[in-house]
Amino acid sequence: MRNIKMTVEYDGSRYKGFQRLKDNEMTIQGKIESVLSKMEEEDIEIIGSGRTDMGVHACGQVVNFKTNSQYSVEKMQKYLYEYLPEDIVVKSIEEVDDRFHSRYNVKSKVYLYKIDNNKFHKVFSRKYATHIEKKLDLNLMKEASEYLVGEHDFTSFASSKSKKKSNVREINSISIQENNDLIEIYIEGNGFLYNMVRIIVGALIEVGHKKKTPQDIKTMLEDKDRSKASDTAQAKGLCLYKVKY
Amino acid sequence: MRNIKMTVEYDGSRYKGFQRLKDNEMTIQGKIESVLSKMEEEDIEIIGSGRTDMGVHACGQVVNFKTNSQYSVEKMQKYLYEYLPEDIVVKSIEEVDDRFHSRYNVKSKVYLYKIDNNKFHKVFSRKYATHIEKKLDLNLMKEASEYLVGEHDFTSFASSKSKKKSNVREINSISIQENNDLIEIYIEGNGFLYNMVRIIVGALIEVGHKKKTPQDIKTMLEDKDRSKASDTAQAKGLCLYKVKY
Repeated sequence: MRNIKMTVEYDGSRYKGFQRLKDNEMTIQGKIESVLSKMEEEDIEIIGSGRTDMGVHACGQVVNFKTNSQYSVEKMQKYLYEYLPEDIVVKSIEEVDDRFHSRYNVKSKVYLYKIDNNKFHKVFSRKYATHIEKKLDLNLMKEASEYLVGEHDFTSFASSKSKKKSNVREINSISIQENNDLIEIYIEGNGFLYNMVRIIVGALIEVGHKKKTPQDIKTMLEDKDRSKASDTAQAKGLCLYKVKY
Repeated sequence: MRNIKMTVEYDGSRYKGFQRLKDNEMTIQGKIESVLSKMEEEDIEIIGSGRTDMGVHACGQVVNFKTNSQYSVEKMQKYLYEYLPEDIVVKSIEEVDDRFHSRYNVKSKVYLYKIDNNKFHKVFSRKYATHIEKKLDLNLMKEASEYLVGEHDFTSFASSKSKKKSNVREINSISIQENNDLIEIYIEGNGFLYNMVRIIVGALIEVGHKKKTPQDIKTMLEDKDRSKASDTAQAKGLCLYKVKY
């Protein structure tokens, strides 16, 4: 069978997340599989680099699937473009080595979190950025983010629903910048626990509002205590930006 | 009575245009007037700098209205923010001289037209940019745009529905640039005929696709013939960017 790798962009607003649920439930995986399965009347299952939650977007989700189809990849991409709804687009497609697995082979993932920190929300990014009226101190947030970079036990920054054996993960970098009147937080890491990015952003927001100090973030990490996790930042500000292999 | 001037941002996707229609029809003017009229139980009528058509957006529409309310402008802005739908936001508000009229006093208007010229449309700007798959030659479009700058009779670039006495208007500038993987066309002028911006963009697209030469645009202007107007570019790519007084 051929192994096909695709990079997919989607607006998660209407969906119950990436992962397939029961029939007819709106999921990204469900939509893509249903179109692919019709293409050649074979049952296609796609593997994502990971799940994205309800309401989370992606600029660069990566998936792969096995198929017996003899269609060229260009033809597959056109077919998907024609039959997928306009909020899911396959940006690139290629045939890859049989051993490529979009989840197991991930080297790192980059998430982008957008915050609209203006007094009144911006109309055109209202679905892709979280509006926070009260001014954030970016310098304090940058200082706090430095404690998170590196290999740490992120127990304090995971949802209690996370059931992984080890909570040790490595964050390669966090960059916080302003762009087009929005605050953009890029977080790159080799793996993320359930809700980890949104809880990190929630903690950085508390620092930006001076409810926590940057040093409190260090203490939170050391405490390894889920009950100390900050509020989970809203889904709509989050985007799976890039998956690296 | 006090005279209040506001700058309004709106996503036109859901609306039948700016201008108030019958009760319950979704219009920008209708929405704003209905909230303002409830604020102090007085009948408020707003005057826009001009209409925007069904599906057209605004980053900087300007309106003014007369009121007996003694609310501070900050309180009015907050009230509007609370009761308007999230796709209409008053960005700024101020009390102005009694003689200020948001339509009569316009010096110039800037429109922005966005084109997504990628093979497959970009998910996150799908409602705010017109997708054109076939590559456009920007240099030819820039050359053509130079013929349009200045004072001209724009009869060939107006909808036949336009009923103005004179079709002479002045375009101050047209700039065409790429930004974030979208083509942005800014057009500033002292006045625009019905559908004029979208017909100009339609003509520039024909030039970009080499169906017309830049010189053909000059000929079109000289012909002053409505039947020669190019196709009207889609509403969703257009945004009333700024109104200058």
